[in-house]
Amino acid sequence: MSEFDLINQFFKQGTVKRDDVLLGIGDDCAILSPPPGRQLAVSTDTLISGVHFPENTAAEDIGYKSLAVNLSDLAAMGAEPAWASLAITLPAADQSWLKRFMLGFNELASKYKVALIGGDTTRGPLSITVNITGFVKPENLLRRNQAKHGDKIFVTGTLGDAGIGLNAVLNNLPLDHGLNYCIKRLNRPRPQIEAGLLLSPFSVAAIDISDGLLADLKHICIASQCGAIVNLENLPLSDALLQYYNNQPDWQPILGGGDDYELCFTSSQNNVEDIKNILQLNKIDISCIGEITDSLEVNCLFNNQLVDIQHDGYNHF
Amino acid sequence: MSEFDLINQFFKQGTVKRDDVLLGIGDDCAILSPPPGRQLAVSTDTLISGVHFPENTAAEDIGYKSLAVNLSDLAAMGAEPAWASLAITLPAADQSWLKRFMLGFNELASKYKVALIGGDTTRGPLSITVNITGFVKPENLLRRNQAKHGDKIFVTGTLGDAGIGLNAVLNNLPLDHGLNYCIKRLNRPRPQIEAGLLLSPFSVAAIDISDGLLADLKHICIASQCGAIVNLENLPLSDALLQYYNNQPDWQPILGGGDDYELCFTSSQNNVEDIKNILQLNKIDISCIGEITDSLEVNCLFNNQLVDIQHDGYNHF
Repeated sequence: MSEFDLINQFFKQGTVKRDDVLLGIGDDCAILSPPPGRQLAVSTDTLISGVHFPENTAAEDIGYKSLAVNLSDLAAMGAEPAWASLAITLPAADQSWLKRFMLGFNELASKYKVALIGGDTTRGPLSITVNITGFVKPENLLRRNQAKHGDKIFVTGTLGDAGIGLNAVLNNLPLDHGLNYCIKRLNRPRPQIEAGLLLSPFSVAAIDISDGLLADLKHICIASQCGAIVNLENLPLSDALLQYYNNQPDWQPILGGGDDYELCFTSSQNNVEDIKNILQLNKIDISCIGEITDSLEVNCLFNNQLVDIQHDGYNHF
Repeated sequence: MSEFDLINQFFKQGTVKRDDVLLGIGDDCAILSPPPGRQLAVSTDTLISGVHFPENTAAEDIGYKSLAVNLSDLAAMGAEPAWASLAITLPAADQSWLKRFMLGFNELASKYKVALIGGDTTRGPLSITVNITGFVKPENLLRRNQAKHGDKIFVTGTLGDAGIGLNAVLNNLPLDHGLNYCIKRLNRPRPQIEAGLLLSPFSVAAIDISDGLLADLKHICIASQCGAIVNLENLPLSDALLQYYNNQPDWQPILGGGDDYELCFTSSQNNVEDIKNILQLNKIDISCIGEITDSLEVNCLFNNQLVDIQHDGYNHF
């Protein structure tokens, strides 16, 4: 099967058609018509087999996750998803694998109306690079550098589940309901697109938690030239996680493990009630986990006692 | 050295600044302002070590080529280059290698005013994926499906040099002036951006020759529902190639070898003189190599005798 047969069979028949895609897969370039008055938000993420997902991960889950982690970057800017390019490197032209990969990819693409506009298919060790473009109104951009002394710090959803899921997969732990939930959180992260769009009219700093809460919160603090206090007793934890830790959470993997893909954002005291209300109306759970300070440090407190957390994020090199 | 140190040291200080890049590397997404009245042309190409370039290729050349092959896709649409994302997977954080890689990348980025707007740096077997965006006027788009019966077929530059260069590198041939020229053609392909822009006001079909002339011409014929005759005696061949073949060219590698990155385009008889004049004025060499037919076949003739060419392009799988 040639590269072109693969393209025709698996990539060209995307489920999402958009009027702003004037020419999709099949020429030297895709031709796109950006909407007037909007800016483009663009991000790229690569997933490597054995690094970003365990080697035995199901093809559907890899397809889903490769789009999800990119959508998560759009969420952190308050952008509306539009177009994706998919560069996939495969050890062999395994049609069954590709079909299942695209099932997972297209499931999420359909949900967020993302058109697959192009890409490349090459042979080599399994690796997927997605380039995603979304639209933002210039005045509604979520930036990392908007945090201010006294702002409250929030996160969506719960933290630490994906790290437990990874541990369960890598160490072949006997699975129960809770571990299955955590593995799902690892393989099928939910990009917080709706939360990003709802937050975008407010002047908040935001980032998606891909490298671990502490590492990502530090990015906000560095960009905003501020510090933060995190109150560990307020971290949102799932029942599955509490059960796994027998109600004695181990903070290090919760704060330093990656793959949560929740949003971390800050809000001035004035906006806290409005933000809480609008997210609650849209059934998005958020938790206040701390406060921005004027120091340049990120410190963790548990019942007002300083806790020393060693590791603060995944490092590739 | 962390991923973030790498980003700061090697990628953030791009040499090209553009007013339409409102936010470059350093947040969750880049923020871009597309020009009014233009459409976007977007393409993605992955280069894998040992597949798209020999493993011992110099870092500068890999950096140059990874941008060049993407620019070549913009050239084939008649687009003006603007923004690039760079996803690079590296076996180790080799700072000297990265510095040299970016020297090659930035050399070409500076020439065509391409801003590096983002990307991803991951660890694994060496592989580079570039996503490129250019601008086109809606009325000036070069498409593959514009070829018509009776059109003349042209190519820019010369064909087959890169294939000889690859052969020289892979088989450690003793180098002379001609082989060094062919290796340079392999490692430093010149994207035909100017030719694409000059051709864009004419209604021509165009494609860049990345998989070999015959394979790429067939893409034009399939998209345009036509056929073609290629007159082999008219193929533009370099002195280095003729010397290598002792003036007895082997057509198969010349027609089927990839990596030429010249443009192949068609023109109605009416436009031939105008196109020749404007390209000559801009010192771009073109050769008429054949004619579009109303059959659905691509045939090669040498002095009016049919020549059977077996292989017609690189296939990844």
